[in-house]
Amino acid sequence: MELNALAPLAEQLFTDLRRLGDDGVGITRDSYGEGENAAASYLTEWAGHQGLAVTRDRAANLIFTLPDDIGDASDAGDAPATWIGSHLDSVPQGGNYDGLAGIVAGLLCLVEQRRSQRHPATPVRVLALRGEESAWFGRAYMGSSALFGKLNDADLAMPHRTHGRSLATCMAQAGADVDAIRNGATLFDASRAKAWLELHIEQGPVMIARNMPVAIVPGIRGNVRHNRVSCVGEAGHSGAVPRWLRHDAMFAVADLITRLDEHWRALLERGIDLVVTTGIVGTDPAEHAISRIPGKVDFSLEVRSQSTDTLDVFYELMRTECRAIERDRGVQFVFDRRLASPPAIMDAHVSSLLVDACRALDLPQERVPSGAGHDAAIFANAGIPSGMVFVRNANGSHNPLESMDLDDFMRGVQVLDAATHWL
Amino acid sequence: MELNALAPLAEQLFTDLRRLGDDGVGITRDSYGEGENAAASYLTEWAGHQGLAVTRDRAANLIFTLPDDIGDASDAGDAPATWIGSHLDSVPQGGNYDGLAGIVAGLLCLVEQRRSQRHPATPVRVLALRGEESAWFGRAYMGSSALFGKLNDADLAMPHRTHGRSLATCMAQAGADVDAIRNGATLFDASRAKAWLELHIEQGPVMIARNMPVAIVPGIRGNVRHNRVSCVGEAGHSGAVPRWLRHDAMFAVADLITRLDEHWRALLERGIDLVVTTGIVGTDPAEHAISRIPGKVDFSLEVRSQSTDTLDVFYELMRTECRAIERDRGVQFVFDRRLASPPAIMDAHVSSLLVDACRALDLPQERVPSGAGHDAAIFANAGIPSGMVFVRNANGSHNPLESMDLDDFMRGVQVLDAATHWL
Repeated sequence: MELNALAPLAEQLFTDLRRLGDDGVGITRDSYGEGENAAASYLTEWAGHQGLAVTRDRAANLIFTLPDDIGDASDAGDAPATWIGSHLDSVPQGGNYDGLAGIVAGLLCLVEQRRSQRHPATPVRVLALRGEESAWFGRAYMGSSALFGKLNDADLAMPHRTHGRSLATCMAQAGADVDAIRNGATLFDASRAKAWLELHIEQGPVMIARNMPVAIVPGIRGNVRHNRVSCVGEAGHSGAVPRWLRHDAMFAVADLITRLDEHWRALLERGIDLVVTTGIVGTDPAEHAISRIPGKVDFSLEVRSQSTDTLDVFYELMRTECRAIERDRGVQFVFDRRLASPPAIMDAHVSSLLVDACRALDLPQERVPSGAGHDAAIFANAGIPSGMVFVRNANGSHNPLESMDLDDFMRGVQVLDAATHWL
Repeated sequence: MELNALAPLAEQLFTDLRRLGDDGVGITRDSYGEGENAAASYLTEWAGHQGLAVTRDRAANLIFTLPDDIGDASDAGDAPATWIGSHLDSVPQGGNYDGLAGIVAGLLCLVEQRRSQRHPATPVRVLALRGEESAWFGRAYMGSSALFGKLNDADLAMPHRTHGRSLATCMAQAGADVDAIRNGATLFDASRAKAWLELHIEQGPVMIARNMPVAIVPGIRGNVRHNRVSCVGEAGHSGAVPRWLRHDAMFAVADLITRLDEHWRALLERGIDLVVTTGIVGTDPAEHAISRIPGKVDFSLEVRSQSTDTLDVFYELMRTECRAIERDRGVQFVFDRRLASPPAIMDAHVSSLLVDACRALDLPQERVPSGAGHDAAIFANAGIPSGMVFVRNANGSHNPLESMDLDDFMRGVQVLDAATHWL
């Protein structure tokens, strides 16, 4: 397979961009900022050396094409294309592969086509999206959402985590048409996109645990979230209040978590996709003490599933359990605003082509749903047939220890490349 | 009953000492400090007006007697006495009754004896103890522990919470013989004490809930405590790690709390005295996030019971559950130093006299164990037959809202007074 000959090229790209993004601890490519710009400039120059054409869409994302791809890629008169892409940015002190791997994968497909002169029936375009990580402005999927009129005034006003300038200001500085974005204009013609393909490192431990170099993603989980739920009970002297007179907020929260865990376990046994997390839990440092019954406990609650029905049903189950605990224990649960992101289903035909590619390459044909969100969810929910390939990765993501084997990565690129020839 | 005629005297004492200790928010009578000294001076002068004698023991506690009580009360040649007492000090911004009520009760008994010239066979002495509250030096029962050689060098070196001077310095300034205390000398001859009687407000809500004006305390709970237990799991992306690969420290701690709560409930049904509290619980603010599986949760654990066996057995049960959860969930519980205070059993004979007194006064004869610690535990564990009377009190203790009804208090004084005539 000729594509494997490009492994040293991939390695060089990853090495150069690692050096470029090195912050002393990990990799920092800040959304609509210096780090992301540096990576964009580097890739633009590199693509020129490889004989590829580069342009930008109105949201300042980069589009890479073969030089003979017809006309301006943002021109609505274009012929349909297969889009491959992912995001340029990283979290602060993050890893080198989350996002970047999917862009490099697309670029390798273009380079291989240019070298081999074997062109798929539908031309391939590579989209290097900006602003996927929520770490910088508190909003995820900014670069892809901007393409579909999904950034509202509140989003655009969000301040950068360190310097405080708004998302709108930073997008404008990067060259985006913020007026059009603010007006909800559609900047990406979904009808011109035959498919969206995204390669991404797995951010969990499943593929390592199950020994899968690559996997096909059948869907991306949505979530329902409360950033803060307060359980309000009654404080009291730990020695002087017997169990029957207690309203212990911590025992109530523990009770809730345990009930949710039991439901979760039962639902998994029925094959239902679900994860439940209370990432932040705490008694109140202003008043807690070893000998004081906690009068108030705050916690976050996040439920993720590939199924909107599961999210809705589990959420109602959670509220029902809260009411039962309120009655049992004389406490009260106070909820902040319910936040929800819908799940996204990857396209059956596109996914079947990716599975066929795995089979043709003698790779296991495994499906691993994505628990984390990806730009692919935005494209899929905009009606574009989408597919994702996961590549095995150790140590999770959003940290400098991300560890993707180059051989695994090249297998993922081969799967993408094969699928583009069948689309 | 003549004693009831002393209610206005009691009210005046509480009012004057409330004014003296007023800090603008609540009552502050700092141990071995200005507030405690002011209360001691006021009571000394007041006792003189009432025709009582006042002296001090070598730990600077105040001893009140009838003027004809034989000789120096600290003289080992004395005849046995019945001691009534409690502590002078309060927590910062505390209430007026925690401690003071027990001293006033004893003083009223002496005043009544002086007025009526009805003297019990065993003379009554009233001990106004200093330094019971741990809020000031981090050590409780200092004034009573000093009498039995129970303050060690580490205790005496503990710094005051605000000005930082050591307990030894502050005790010396109050007039205590710190050298003798440091050497572990016995400053109170237990063989001279026929009984220790202590009246105290209830610090929990049981007596209000059950409508008891007074109650007899059968025992004072001991406790076993860990100030900090760490549950160490593995952090991870909340979306990307499925249940079977999670090591969620928060779900593990919730599991532990729920298991302990179930054991607790089962043990209560078998009549076993127990309270269990996790007053401080929290994910790590340095690394927790809504979408991050908690990798570490710290919590405090406190178990109280009147029975050493129950404390030991429940503690082992807790460690066993921890091991089971470690196996089930792939986490680890790391314990700091185990701290223990032994329970104290009130004397059966003394308690039966107090119950008899309740019956004679047409009061309910109820027993309410003390979950909080009291000086009476020090006297009981020094071998002195001890008894305690609780008086109904709203809103707990250690806060300005302590609320004791004067009628309830006078009932408690009558119970004490009756018992002294039978001892």
